[in-house]
Amino acid sequence: MTNINSEQIASMEKFYRINLINSIAGYKSLNLLGTISADGITNLSIVSSAFHLGSNPPLLGIVMRPEREHNDTLSNIRDTGHYSLNNVQPEWLLQAHQTSASYPSGVSEFDACGFTKEYVPAFKAPFVRQSAIRIGLEVKDMIGMEINGTTIVIGEVIHILTDNELIGNDGLVDHERAETMVVAGLDSYYLPKFTERLTYAKPGINPKIKNQEIRV
Amino acid sequence: MTNINSEQIASMEKFYRINLINSIAGYKSLNLLGTISADGITNLSIVSSAFHLGSNPPLLGIVMRPEREHNDTLSNIRDTGHYSLNNVQPEWLLQAHQTSASYPSGVSEFDACGFTKEYVPAFKAPFVRQSAIRIGLEVKDMIGMEINGTTIVIGEVIHILTDNELIGNDGLVDHERAETMVVAGLDSYYLPKFTERLTYAKPGINPKIKNQEIRV
Repeated sequence: MTNINSEQIASMEKFYRINLINSIAGYKSLNLLGTISADGITNLSIVSSAFHLGSNPPLLGIVMRPEREHNDTLSNIRDTGHYSLNNVQPEWLLQAHQTSASYPSGVSEFDACGFTKEYVPAFKAPFVRQSAIRIGLEVKDMIGMEINGTTIVIGEVIHILTDNELIGNDGLVDHERAETMVVAGLDSYYLPKFTERLTYAKPGINPKIKNQEIRV
Repeated sequence: MTNINSEQIASMEKFYRINLINSIAGYKSLNLLGTISADGITNLSIVSSAFHLGSNPPLLGIVMRPEREHNDTLSNIRDTGHYSLNNVQPEWLLQAHQTSASYPSGVSEFDACGFTKEYVPAFKAPFVRQSAIRIGLEVKDMIGMEINGTTIVIGEVIHILTDNELIGNDGLVDHERAETMVVAGLDSYYLPKFTERLTYAKPGINPKIKNQEIRV
């Protein structure tokens, strides 16, 4: 068992540290983030920072880096108030990864990477037709992080576009059936396999397996 | 393809909405969060909100809910400045899930759920000996979210305790070998399987598979 400390982390080669710190806390959620600019140019980028902030109201967070291509996305969100998160599936993983390339402004990653835009009335941002689970969000807060220049974007879920069969009777989304992928670090992709669903935990009572309730 | 809108989400039965919104954005990272109070009582809780904020400095975020048991964790972090995140593995998944039970203050989930505390000099919070990957963090920021009463805790990675063989030559952590799990919703657990590692994306060039580099 090795102990890697602050000083060692600070002195690491840049890309070694990026790979290590991006993968240290486990697998990350994976989504395609769709936006549109005020003058109608769509933008699509693969993101691994979506996190759950709360269910009532239904809120998700994402982290945006300070670099240029993300400022495009960030200004689109600021200008239109809307953005979409769309799950990533193995059949078109390479296309989804390709959206991380630095395309010039004016080029839409939808077109460059072969994704189909889909729209919902009164919602400005495009969804990805290829995705089985598509979430439409309205921005609620943008928190500039002084510590490293990133921005935490908080959005409320105002649309969920999916097939009814992907949502269980108790509301749980069946991501195995939806073929939702995850990522470790920047570029290593995985497909989760169902292990166990467990009962609500109470002190002094061992959790029970309730696997039969995964698809009801 | 169904479109579930804001009004429908707002009118959902409470636990249906909790399950749906907790699982809609995909799989979530899974860790055991270890803390200690000023008077030496340890605390352990399973968390699914860890997210990557940046690599230089090495920063992770977690979301803490406003409820009582989390305020214990939150005040421990505030009082000591330190906390640990430890990966969750299938062999002791039921014990890890059991840490989500509401134990009375004064009872340590380490003892109640059968986990072994491990300490590092000058770092106050306990690590989980059973975990293959253990991260020691120092709190840098606590952001109270007006919108729903949660707190986003930002911490700097100051210790990484793991086996050298779990870290690749380029810094990527091998979570498949570490048997790191993920969760969907509150209680549905999965084990990811490696699919593909891809080359850095550049405009006009198709990504290549570099799977051989996953374990180097």
